[in-house]
Amino acid sequence: MLTNKMIGVIGGGQCSPEIAKLAEEVGERIAQNDGLLICGGLSGVMEAACKGAKKQHGTTIGILPGDRTSDANDYVDIAIATGLGEARNVIIVKSSDAVIAINGEYGTLSEISFCLKLGKPVIGLKTWNFDPGIIDAKDATQALNKVMELVR
Amino acid sequence: MLTNKMIGVIGGGQCSPEIAKLAEEVGERIAQNDGLLICGGLSGVMEAACKGAKKQHGTTIGILPGDRTSDANDYVDIAIATGLGEARNVIIVKSSDAVIAINGEYGTLSEISFCLKLGKPVIGLKTWNFDPGIIDAKDATQALNKVMELVR
Amino acid sequence: MLTNKMIGVIGGGQCSPEIAKLAEEVGERIAQNDGLLICGGLSGVMEAACKGAKKQHGTTIGILPGDRTSDANDYVDIAIATGLGEARNVIIVKSSDAVIAINGEYGTLSEISFCLKLGKPVIGLKTWNFDPGIIDAKDATQALNKVMELVR
Amino acid sequence: MLTNKMIGVIGGGQCSPEIAKLAEEVGERIAQNDGLLICGGLSGVMEAACKGAKKQHGTTIGILPGDRTSDANDYVDIAIATGLGEARNVIIVKSSDAVIAINGEYGTLSEISFCLKLGKPVIGLKTWNFDPGIIDAKDATQALNKVMELVR
Repeated sequence: MLTNKMIGVIGGGQCSPEIAKLAEEVGERIAQNDGLLICGGLSGVMEAACKGAKKQHGTTIGILPGDRTSDANDYVDIAIATGLGEARNVIIVKSSDAVIAINGEYGTLSEISFCLKLGKPVIGLKTWNFDPGIIDAKDATQALNKVMELVR
Repeated sequence: MLTNKMIGVIGGGQCSPEIAKLAEEVGERIAQNDGLLICGGLSGVMEAACKGAKKQHGTTIGILPGDRTSDANDYVDIAIATGLGEARNVIIVKSSDAVIAINGEYGTLSEISFCLKLGKPVIGLKTWNFDPGIIDAKDATQALNKVMELVR
Repeated sequence: MLTNKMIGVIGGGQCSPEIAKLAEEVGERIAQNDGLLICGGLSGVMEAACKGAKKQHGTTIGILPGDRTSDANDYVDIAIATGLGEARNVIIVKSSDAVIAINGEYGTLSEISFCLKLGKPVIGLKTWNFDPGIIDAKDATQALNKVMELVR
Repeated sequence: MLTNKMIGVIGGGQCSPEIAKLAEEVGERIAQNDGLLICGGLSGVMEAACKGAKKQHGTTIGILPGDRTSDANDYVDIAIATGLGEARNVIIVKSSDAVIAINGEYGTLSEISFCLKLGKPVIGLKTWNFDPGIIDAKDATQALNKVMELVR
C-alpha cells in the first residue's frame, strides 16, 4: 500500500552552498512530513536534499540516468539505474505526487515542463518562474506546507 | 552515410489554422533545403509540417509516443513506435541536427529544454521565448536560413 | 549508502497457485536476508513475491510500465511509474544486484536475456532453461542461498 | 502514408564473414521487396544488412543506443539517436511489421522475446531456436518470402 506520499526534488547537479542549504532543509521537511524523497540521485541539489532527508531518518530514492546503482550519491537508500540518460527525467515526475523545484537549469526546466504538461503540482524555490502553474514558495517550510496541502 | 541534415519540428498536437499554415511552410522549406524532417508524428503542428514536406517531395520521420506505427499522421513516411510516452521527446532532440519550435505548449517546452541542455540549436517561431538560447525567427524562410547556417 | 542488496524478482503477471506460493516464499527469503525486493510491481509472481516480503517486514519496489503509481499491487512500498511499457524491463535488471526468475513467459525471457547480456547473475526457479548462464535452483531457500553468495 | 513495410533485422554487433554475407543478402532481399530496413544501426549483422539494402537502393533506418547519430554505420540513411541503451531494443520490435533474426546472442534474444510477447512475426536464420513462435528459414530468399506473406 502506498501510504506515504512521494515528493520529487529536482534541481541542478551543481549548486552554490546557499542552494545546497535550502535543498537540505527541503529534504529534512519532506522526511518530517513522512514523505518519500525521489530525485535524480546524483550530486548538487539532489545530494543535499537526500542528506537532509537522512538526517531526519527519511527514505530517499534516486532515479539515475546511468547503468550503475553505484552512481548514486551517498544519501540514496534505493538506487534505480535506468540507463536512459535524460529520458529518466520524466520518470521522476510521473512517480511523484508533487514536485519541488530548487534552482536548477535546463534539465530542471524539462522536468518542470513535464509537471505542467501532466498536471502534477510543482512548487518552485528560487527556480524558473515564467508560468502561473509553478507555485512559488519563499522557503523550505512553506514549500512543504504547500506540497502537503496539495497531496493530501 | 548521413548526407542529409535531420531537422526537428516541435509544436502542439493541436493548433490554429494560422499556426498550421506556418508549420506547413516550415515543412516545405525543410524539404527544399534537402533536410529530413523529424517530429513527434502526430497531429497539429507535426501533421502540418509533414504535409508541407511531402508537397515538396521531402522525407518525414515520426517518433511516436505509442506502440503502433498506425498512430502516425498521413504524411509520415517512416514511423517509429517507441511506446515510451513523453520520454520519446528527448529522442527527437538527440536525433536532430537542429530543431525548429513552432508555437506549442508544455510538451514543446520540455523539448526546448532538452535542446538547451544538450547544446542543440533551437530556432523559435511564435513559441516560448524566455532564454537567449532560443534563436528567434520571423517566418519559415528565415527559420530555415538560420537552421542551414547552423548545421552546415 | 546502498547497504542492502537489491534483488530482482521476475515472472508472469498471471500464475498458478503453486507458482504464487513459490514466489511468496522467495519474497519472504529476500526480506529475511535483508534484501530489497525490486520487481515489475504488477500482479501474479510480482504480487506474490511482494506479499511474501511484506510478511517479513521487507521493502518492496515496483518498476511499473504505466503512468500511474496506483497501478502497483497492494504490497509495493515504493512505486516507480515509468510510462515506458516493456522498455521498463531493462531497468529492473540494471537496478538489481542479482535476479531471480520464477516461471514466466516471454516478458520474463526478455529480462533473462538482459541479465545474460549485462552479466547480471540470474537464478532460475521453474523457468526458461536453455542457457548455462541461468543458475538453476530447486526451491526458494536454495535460490536465496545462491543469490546471497553471488552478491556478497 | 506508410506504404512500405518496415522489416526489422536483428543480430549481433560482431559476426563471422559467413553470417555477414547472409545478413547482406537479407538486406538486399528487403530492398528488392520494397521493404524499409530497420535495425540497431551499429556494426556486425546490422551493418552488413544495411550494406545489402543500399546495394539495391533501399532505405535503412538505425535505432541507436547512444546519443549521437554519428554512431551509425556507413549504410544507415536515417539515424535515430535514442540515448536509451538496451532499452532501445523494444523500439525496433514495435516499429517493425516483421522481424528477421540472424544469428546473434543475448541482445538478439531480448528482441526475439519482445517479438513473441507482442505477437510480432519473427523469422529466424541461424539463430535462437527454442520456441515454435520463431519461424525458421533456410536462407535469405526464403526468409523474405515468409516475411512478405506475413505482412501482406
